[in-house]
Amino acid sequence: MTVTYEDVVGAAGRISGHVLRTPVLEISPGLFLKLELLQHSGSFKVRGAFNRILSAGPVPGSGVIAASGGNHGLAVAYAARTLGVRAEIFVPEVTSPVKVAGLKALGAVINQTGAIYSEAAEAASKRAAETGALEVHAYDQPEVIAGQGTTGLELARQVTGLDTVLVAVGGGGFVAGITLGAGSGSGPNPGSDSGSGSGAGTGAAAGGGSGVGPRIVAVEPELIPTLHEALKAGGPVPVEVGGVAADALGATRIGRTAYDICSRAGVESLLVPDGAIVAARRTLWERHRLVAEHAGATAYAALLSGAYVPAPGERVAVVVCGSNTDPATLTAE
Amino acid sequence: MTVTYEDVVGAAGRISGHVLRTPVLEISPGLFLKLELLQHSGSFKVRGAFNRILSAGPVPGSGVIAASGGNHGLAVAYAARTLGVRAEIFVPEVTSPVKVAGLKALGAVINQTGAIYSEAAEAASKRAAETGALEVHAYDQPEVIAGQGTTGLELARQVTGLDTVLVAVGGGGFVAGITLGAGSGSGPNPGSDSGSGSGAGTGAAAGGGSGVGPRIVAVEPELIPTLHEALKAGGPVPVEVGGVAADALGATRIGRTAYDICSRAGVESLLVPDGAIVAARRTLWERHRLVAEHAGATAYAALLSGAYVPAPGERVAVVVCGSNTDPATLTAE
Repeated sequence: MTVTYEDVVGAAGRISGHVLRTPVLEISPGLFLKLELLQHSGSFKVRGAFNRILSAGPVPGSGVIAASGGNHGLAVAYAARTLGVRAEIFVPEVTSPVKVAGLKALGAVINQTGAIYSEAAEAASKRAAETGALEVHAYDQPEVIAGQGTTGLELARQVTGLDTVLVAVGGGGFVAGITLGAGSGSGPNPGSDSGSGSGAGTGAAAGGGSGVGPRIVAVEPELIPTLHEALKAGGPVPVEVGGVAADALGATRIGRTAYDICSRAGVESLLVPDGAIVAARRTLWERHRLVAEHAGATAYAALLSGAYVPAPGERVAVVVCGSNTDPATLTAE
Repeated sequence: MTVTYEDVVGAAGRISGHVLRTPVLEISPGLFLKLELLQHSGSFKVRGAFNRILSAGPVPGSGVIAASGGNHGLAVAYAARTLGVRAEIFVPEVTSPVKVAGLKALGAVINQTGAIYSEAAEAASKRAAETGALEVHAYDQPEVIAGQGTTGLELARQVTGLDTVLVAVGGGGFVAGITLGAGSGSGPNPGSDSGSGSGAGTGAAAGGGSGVGPRIVAVEPELIPTLHEALKAGGPVPVEVGGVAADALGATRIGRTAYDICSRAGVESLLVPDGAIVAARRTLWERHRLVAEHAGATAYAALLSGAYVPAPGERVAVVVCGSNTDPATLTAE
């Protein structure tokens, strides 16, 4: 399996009209929030879901099937409803009540099974083999990665001269897609067909315009270091899963395709403690009136906690990627 | 007192760097939300507050003083803290606890007095006369109107060919400012110095590019029809104040300057019932993950309830203008 910048461009055309072009908010000079939490279904996941389903040709009568900690399920259910096909979603017990309620509201058939994501995923694959439904993987399918990557493509067009993108990681589909879409993959140079490439090749920090995309910094909770451990080990390895963001970032290992893309592109890895994620989520509400779930606030946590310190003049974008949370928890003591 | 398009342009330069350029979200083809609820202090009011204070020259040692249902007070307190001056804020008893807590957090001296806004305003003016503090009016000062108008200037630059803008009305400073800033005032043609004017003069619905700004539709709660009654009466008249949005839109009459600008420019007036406002606020959260206060959802209510029905192909922007609310109330039964 391989995915390229061109696949992301193709995905963007395919899903256009079904997903929102989420806006960018410059919160201080050179610091941008990509508001992907305002996306349909409350996360970036609809991008991959639409691209996978629309790439597959006619959908079987048994519909589409997916396993998900919640956001991917919501996205597949949303896409299925939009396209008029049946959706069956497998979610683990850890899934938040808000997400289960959302799935019901979208008319999906729900199977809540298994303690964590990987167990629900196994049950979903078994079921797909029985019914012939189209499986939409949460992160490890080329069409899904290409779809998520449209976020990066969009961002690179919205903010010129971007040096760095901070993005949260679960199974890796999002960070891998963004790496490609933002032009930071190590494949064919996406700048070469835009007419803007100078060919100077001054390194990742040089940002847009040179045909080299921004530096990608992957941010993970200390309690779910899927990419971090994989980069250390030289390949995907299983990790323990826990903490406040487990319902959305709780893959037990990074996807193979995502790992290959990230390691080839030199994606950097950072870990943040749960306390920093909780504080970042609270600050996004209090200071910026954005309601993010913990996973959605994880990339911002790296900045707020000082785990990532931009250089003077560095242009940094933080992807705020999910809002499937009960806003009442923001003001509860 | 008069305010012009040029005053708005001047304000934009003056307050730049202190306020956010709030993003625009296209939620369906040709339908845009201007996300002014993400503004510093949770509403557009900081634009006018900064412009008034920065226009005044050196601020007296007694600082700045304002009366406010809440949002204007928060904005003045925010601006004062940023600029390092003292702020004294008079709020009526109707002000929500969330807003009072916000004022305290910003370090303002708070006087909660009077049943409704106009009583607090009277107390504030008396106090300003005693202390010599700089008074920042909630809506009826030229610098305040020009500041609020930068929202319209920004919007017109963000969305090309806009036909219509829906905006909520309290005392009228915001709608008047937007009317000027979006190029819809009846003063000197703002298109004439942009080089883009065709001079065709094809009417308001023709939108940008012709030098004629978009049509401005003012939306008010049925229970606070300040502009609506003024347009009927041919001038500002007192109205009863009540309903869910009273803490932010609860002026008892439209400001004189705002009335003159709106009536000259042919601003249209629409009323929406409180039920539509409540539903719009709920929908902004459920469908778009935006936490708006009732006043902030009032313009969207006109669209959602069918009080305003866009023509086919019409490009409409809805200003979502305030988020000073307890998000817990969004999911409570």
